[in-house]
Amino acid sequence: MHVPGLIERKRDGGTLSADEIAAIVGGYVRGDVPDYQMAALAMAIFFRGMDDAETTALTVQMRDSGDVFDWPDGTPPKVDKHSTGGVGDKVSLVLAPLLACEGVWVPMISGRGLGFTGGTLDKLESIPGFRVNLPWPEMLAQLESVGCFIAGQTDNLCPADKKLYALRDVTGTVASLPLIVASIMSKKLAESLDRLVLDVKFGRGAFMRKHEDAEKLAAAMVAVGRASGVETTALLNPMNQPLGLTAGNALEVAECVEVLQGGGPEDLVELTLDLAVPLVSVSRENLRRRLQDGSAWEKFTAMVAAQGGDVSVLETMRELHRAPVITEITAPRAGELTRLDALEIGRFCVELGAGRAKAGDAVDFAVGVECLRKEGGQVAAGEPVLRVHSRAEIDAAAVGARLLGVD
Amino acid sequence: MHVPGLIERKRDGGTLSADEIAAIVGGYVRGDVPDYQMAALAMAIFFRGMDDAETTALTVQMRDSGDVFDWPDGTPPKVDKHSTGGVGDKVSLVLAPLLACEGVWVPMISGRGLGFTGGTLDKLESIPGFRVNLPWPEMLAQLESVGCFIAGQTDNLCPADKKLYALRDVTGTVASLPLIVASIMSKKLAESLDRLVLDVKFGRGAFMRKHEDAEKLAAAMVAVGRASGVETTALLNPMNQPLGLTAGNALEVAECVEVLQGGGPEDLVELTLDLAVPLVSVSRENLRRRLQDGSAWEKFTAMVAAQGGDVSVLETMRELHRAPVITEITAPRAGELTRLDALEIGRFCVELGAGRAKAGDAVDFAVGVECLRKEGGQVAAGEPVLRVHSRAEIDAAAVGARLLGVD
Repeated sequence: MHVPGLIERKRDGGTLSADEIAAIVGGYVRGDVPDYQMAALAMAIFFRGMDDAETTALTVQMRDSGDVFDWPDGTPPKVDKHSTGGVGDKVSLVLAPLLACEGVWVPMISGRGLGFTGGTLDKLESIPGFRVNLPWPEMLAQLESVGCFIAGQTDNLCPADKKLYALRDVTGTVASLPLIVASIMSKKLAESLDRLVLDVKFGRGAFMRKHEDAEKLAAAMVAVGRASGVETTALLNPMNQPLGLTAGNALEVAECVEVLQGGGPEDLVELTLDLAVPLVSVSRENLRRRLQDGSAWEKFTAMVAAQGGDVSVLETMRELHRAPVITEITAPRAGELTRLDALEIGRFCVELGAGRAKAGDAVDFAVGVECLRKEGGQVAAGEPVLRVHSRAEIDAAAVGARLLGVD
Repeated sequence: MHVPGLIERKRDGGTLSADEIAAIVGGYVRGDVPDYQMAALAMAIFFRGMDDAETTALTVQMRDSGDVFDWPDGTPPKVDKHSTGGVGDKVSLVLAPLLACEGVWVPMISGRGLGFTGGTLDKLESIPGFRVNLPWPEMLAQLESVGCFIAGQTDNLCPADKKLYALRDVTGTVASLPLIVASIMSKKLAESLDRLVLDVKFGRGAFMRKHEDAEKLAAAMVAVGRASGVETTALLNPMNQPLGLTAGNALEVAECVEVLQGGGPEDLVELTLDLAVPLVSVSRENLRRRLQDGSAWEKFTAMVAAQGGDVSVLETMRELHRAPVITEITAPRAGELTRLDALEIGRFCVELGAGRAKAGDAVDFAVGVECLRKEGGQVAAGEPVLRVHSRAEIDAAAVGARLLGVD
């Protein structure tokens, strides 16, 4: 294999064969293909893209660079969801137990927050004792006993992706569609799923601002998933205002508890159902009943208990993690609330300490933002619209102007 | 300096400031900017290009990464030529002494052959004893005594270029106009020249096949040279058939001796004069007289002697390096000779051993190809057109078909 020749071919708009991609990825993991060649290739891919066959080959090779879940024969269908990330997006915590109620297995590998979006693992760690690092035998045992888990990546999941992602991060090659697709899908394919649903966000609080870009990303991920034998469905969902009413770790867990107990904000409930429907063969209304009749809640507590979490505090998460300063942001004038800026709320939450500016930073479970109204709602002048949970005093007027986009 | 941000800016079509380019090049030479970031940036530059100001800044930083010639006050104007490379291009050996006859200093730093083009240093080394590695004091002394030298790069000439070129070679980023310009011009600018002439070749035996690409390269090099205070002129010259009648090290030196003694092929003489005229303030006819009256020849022998070469063999180079097999290639039919394929002749010379497939290979001084006719000449059926000098027997018909483009 002459790597410079392959780089030049991609640079000039040609395609790489599955064998060539396998040789590059294998060589990269072994260290035979150095970082500088991979960086040049990644930049060429940024400019030239990859077709579905190339993207699939890259994804499969990255998947096969590490451990791939090897399910025992005769076990239930394995299903999972991936979201491209948003603010206040806590769907996973409700979706995993809800799906498990229907008898499928949900081996949900999740991530931590980085940038302005929160991370499912961070949220779960606000439950005292909750362990996100599960060894494979424990994952399997928990699927057998509960039907679902939510855990972090095992050490040897997609090492090619870990290495390539770290390289892309420092070489200006993150924002490449096929590289994004391969990174996301390699990790999902390593779960050896039967069905996968993709929640692809668009809007000012999403990675993809434009609907058409989100559509392209969705189509590319669906193509790779299906080509790899996974029933893959993608839903496009707006991410302009936060999902539900809360952004912040413990606040979001408390909101999930409400949903799992049959209440909670409508947008969060409906999106959870939207994403559940393609993964199981029961109706939306049957799924809704699982939220209302306590079975999803029971499954959730079983999952938390199995992963070492303290179930007794789940209904009092707000009290457990109470921020010292709570500030209400009021509407400057009467009228319709036209903007709850998900991006700014997400960034503000990071500044409060709810997220991390860089990997490895500690996370503050108590802080965050509560929305008392959503976009489109009518508010009176001086009526509280947001409630900020923080460690220190904040400038309410400045924060209001920023998060509500008010001048 | 946040290097990924600079890579992204170039990737997205933005420009880099002179300070940013200085920080990147400096960091790269020190090892603070790793190869993988430089490779990604080089690929982004391949796609997005650089404007004249960016290319100049890159060139100047590469020049200043190492030694820059520091001429004593009051010394004559320093002039040099650079050619983008061709087959049979032996101009340097004639041009340097010719210019020195006019009182300018010619500190000519040349290279070795790589790929299908020959190298000036290889040709000179076919003269027994000729030393191409001159330390700086000896260079200066030779300019004072003779007025010209032809030597290899000093160790610390443009180390940034050496490092970047090695990286480009293995990352598919050689064929980038601004990177080519910076690589060529940084080395020439390190000579601290007053005047520079560029011989930019186009055609099937040139690096640039198309006239318009050669024009762009010429314009970019001229812009950088002038912005750096060097009177820079570029001439575009075709390279479809070999220059002169010979390709091969000792054969070419022998041909240069003919020119320096007032004879030799017309195209070689005229191109040498074309390139000399912009560098000195005397007329073309005065320059021609220097070739005819023995003064250029005298200067050449002085240069060879100063660099340790055996002057006594200069007029018998063909006998000194006689290849064991000499094969004449004849015209298959009568008519006009329409094609003497410079690229194929250059490649064939490498195969014979006259050039190198990779850096460090040894070179065979004796082998090569002599043209007995040039394109446009009339030949009779069976008349010799080429004479191949080789170590082993060759298949005359196959070689003829290849080099003459005959079916």
